[in-house]
Amino acid sequence: MLFRKLMQKVFEIISIGNELLIGKVVNSNASYLCKRITELGGFVRRITVVRDDLEEISSSIREAMSRNTDYIITTGGLGPTFDDMSLEGVARAFNLELEINEEALQLVKEKYEKLNEPLTPYRIKMAKLPKGAKPLKNPIGTAPGVILEKGKAKIVCLPGVPKEMEAIFEDSLKEIISKDVTSKFLDISLNVFGVKESSIAPIIDEVRKEVPEIYIKSHPKGYEGNPRIELHLTVTGDNIEAMKMELQRAAKLLEEKIESAGGKVEKTL
Amino acid sequence: MLFRKLMQKVFEIISIGNELLIGKVVNSNASYLCKRITELGGFVRRITVVRDDLEEISSSIREAMSRNTDYIITTGGLGPTFDDMSLEGVARAFNLELEINEEALQLVKEKYEKLNEPLTPYRIKMAKLPKGAKPLKNPIGTAPGVILEKGKAKIVCLPGVPKEMEAIFEDSLKEIISKDVTSKFLDISLNVFGVKESSIAPIIDEVRKEVPEIYIKSHPKGYEGNPRIELHLTVTGDNIEAMKMELQRAAKLLEEKIESAGGKVEKTL
Repeated sequence: MLFRKLMQKVFEIISIGNELLIGKVVNSNASYLCKRITELGGFVRRITVVRDDLEEISSSIREAMSRNTDYIITTGGLGPTFDDMSLEGVARAFNLELEINEEALQLVKEKYEKLNEPLTPYRIKMAKLPKGAKPLKNPIGTAPGVILEKGKAKIVCLPGVPKEMEAIFEDSLKEIISKDVTSKFLDISLNVFGVKESSIAPIIDEVRKEVPEIYIKSHPKGYEGNPRIELHLTVTGDNIEAMKMELQRAAKLLEEKIESAGGKVEKTL
Repeated sequence: MLFRKLMQKVFEIISIGNELLIGKVVNSNASYLCKRITELGGFVRRITVVRDDLEEISSSIREAMSRNTDYIITTGGLGPTFDDMSLEGVARAFNLELEINEEALQLVKEKYEKLNEPLTPYRIKMAKLPKGAKPLKNPIGTAPGVILEKGKAKIVCLPGVPKEMEAIFEDSLKEIISKDVTSKFLDISLNVFGVKESSIAPIIDEVRKEVPEIYIKSHPKGYEGNPRIELHLTVTGDNIEAMKMELQRAAKLLEEKIESAGGKVEKTL
């Protein structure tokens, strides 16, 4: 491969919460993280969604570690209630003790001082971190994020409330990831009308052979009787100019071949 | 436990598609399935989202099997393009051959006859099933769903296009699941105003001790300075009347205790 860096970092996301597994909440947190990590040049290999269950949380973390993952990012389960057990899950996965982290306690304390409220055991719980972990400041909520380094892997725990998760990501995690990830991601979409997905399939195979660096994925948007297909072309690498050229080359080839087959192509950037 | 049936069936969902892992598409298919399966009385333990990668697909299926899962439902990867490889993934997971299934071929053939189109190798691919599997009719698209029984487990493959996935679920899968699952699911929501989640946490612990059959989950909707919390009460079992009574009892206890703490509660059904 010409562009794909061997050094690309592999991410896995572990989404924690019964609400995701009873269909009460759509997992928009995972999509947000996938989008941002991809934009930063990272490669998300898997999302695992588990219940508020200590054994499930810790085993899903161990499984991600066993796949040689660079970043394991969990969302959910950082709050004050009985079933917020993500930090306990991380501690168990690595046989670590949970202990009050002074920096985290300070962050939690400041929040409740502003609200003129005392520190209760349920609030102090949010500052009990796996030994060796560090807090990530939560700019808009009370439970801090958490980061733990284990060998070359970083395990990051973010809250489940979307605004808080996003705030911690943008406020501190983004910078940490950007230092580790040097590859870039580019994409382009073609909207195809008047040709069925099953007729585009052989065209994609032809273009893949000519432009192997570009990944071409078809997304049927209409139905086979009145087809509309989005072709999404993506590439990851470190040579932006060469990547752009190859993207354009693949798009042009697809356009020509699809129009020869009687279809119509609209480009969107 | 009074209500929870020992016989409750365990489901896992495997969502297949790069688009989910680059944040291009939110996983609404998994939410739909979780919601419907929960309503039918099933228990969804995990969702795993993997790339269009044969090794990832087959290993995630093997992992779900190793957790003694009753139903493994995959979505995505049933179409005609090179990266539609879910059936190959299932075949590899169980060391089965892929072979043309006559019933599936008939379904695909009928679709293209209606469209006045020939059967090409790319179209025939959608009728190549793991040996022993059966097709599930797709009422609105071309790729049939697939069901394979392995011991007590059922492996079901559904398309990734949401309307087609839903149509196969409602048209045939729902009935298959309903025959296996006898437990029922009930829930109720309380909207709580004026009390922080960290102040509700000890109240939930008290009520859990008194009504242990009811699972009480808090969902922060505002922020700690202006809190609004949704308490979602759920129960699964087979004695609907007793389940309703316990739900009401837990809701009443929560209401009383929250109002004593200065909060306000609105019930929604």
